Amino acid sequence: MQVAYLLYDRFTALDITGPHEVFNSVPDVESVFVGENAGPCRNESDTLSMVADKSLEEVTAPDILVVPGGFGTRNLLDHEPLLEWIRSVDETSTWTTSVCTGALLLAAAGLLDGRPATTHWLARETLGELGAEPVADRVVIDGKYATGAGVSAGIDMALTLVSEIYGTEVAQAVQLGIEYDPQPPLDAGSPEKAPGEIVELVSAVFTARESS
Amino acid sequence: MQVAYLLYDRFTALDITGPHEVFNSVPDVESVFVGENAGPCRNESDTLSMVADKSLEEVTAPDILVVPGGFGTRNLLDHEPLLEWIRSVDETSTWTTSVCTGALLLAAAGLLDGRPATTHWLARETLGELGAEPVADRVVIDGKYATGAGVSAGIDMALTLVSEIYGTEVAQAVQLGIEYDPQPPLDAGSPEKAPGEIVELVSAVFTARESS
Repeated sequence: MQVAYLLYDRFTALDITGPHEVFNSVPDVESVFVGENAGPCRNESDTLSMVADKSLEEVTAPDILVVPGGFGTRNLLDHEPLLEWIRSVDETSTWTTSVCTGALLLAAAGLLDGRPATTHWLARETLGELGAEPVADRVVIDGKYATGAGVSAGIDMALTLVSEIYGTEVAQAVQLGIEYDPQPPLDAGSPEKAPGEIVELVSAVFTARESS
Repeated sequence: MQVAYLLYDRFTALDITGPHEVFNSVPDVESVFVGENAGPCRNESDTLSMVADKSLEEVTAPDILVVPGGFGTRNLLDHEPLLEWIRSVDETSTWTTSVCTGALLLAAAGLLDGRPATTHWLARETLGELGAEPVADRVVIDGKYATGAGVSAGIDMALTLVSEIYGTEVAQAVQLGIEYDPQPPLDAGSPEKAPGEIVELVSAVFTARESS
């Protein structure tokens, strides 16, 4: 079982390390970090680098594809070499997945046409414009397409898939291994739960960052 | 405000990217990834590399230190150059923090003597042997020392600190930005919640990995 994790300029690190920590806890799962070119990729806030160990040409048939989000997605929505690779590996993948605005890349590649899918709450409209049917759920599975909501939702998405693929006991072992017993000190993790003025603040900050 | 994220050979990626995604969502926080030598560091399962942009000598006075866990900690418990650096930056830090078995490094450096602290549930005994008072909580704050339990607990630890340092509204905005509204599909994230046979399984797997 090979899981390919896509890296690109201005990705979000937690989007990709969350699912990796989950899938990678299952024995005999091979992980490969892949980018358009092999080498370091800088995250969206220019604060860290993760390394693409392989180039796109070197990774042709992963069983699972994980596409993270990040402000960098916006520049890639018409970047055919990447979209073509996504379409190509999707032809033979068992699961094609995304976290956060990674769903925009799957949609831009034409894989989510008419399908229910989720993304970061601030990107739902864009996801709809790209042909998917945005759903305000944390994890959406439609056929072999699994999408997670914003950033931290990748952990829930991957754990849901591990349970689906390997069964409840393996998923329980994975959850216990990474001690995933979340206890957020506040309850503001969705636009439905956060105070209105916080929703407006985050919306304004993200809109400003996106256009920067 | 500078946050230093320590990298070393065989670290756990989610331990460090969780807190980073939280702290980094606060405006004007500077992130620096630091290792004994600058350059790529491989994670504990040899599946990914993150880059230390600075060497220890280049990072002398971070406001917050984040020490992740990983099977690599075991080889570092008597590695004086690293422990000396931890002690040195601790002298001027506002907060000295760890996730998972990162607490073993803080304890080995002598910073947790007699202090309540948490770590991965399988490392509590070792943490006690190193002089701390192990607590089975997800986040423990004692003075300026903040420790998180296993792997995924770094998100809760960092969000707790952001709330403490910047107040509730900023922490709410951070939580909403990373859509941290956890919905695990199972409820096995702690040894108290997981079935007994799963606890035994994970314990056996981790013990085998640690001695490999």
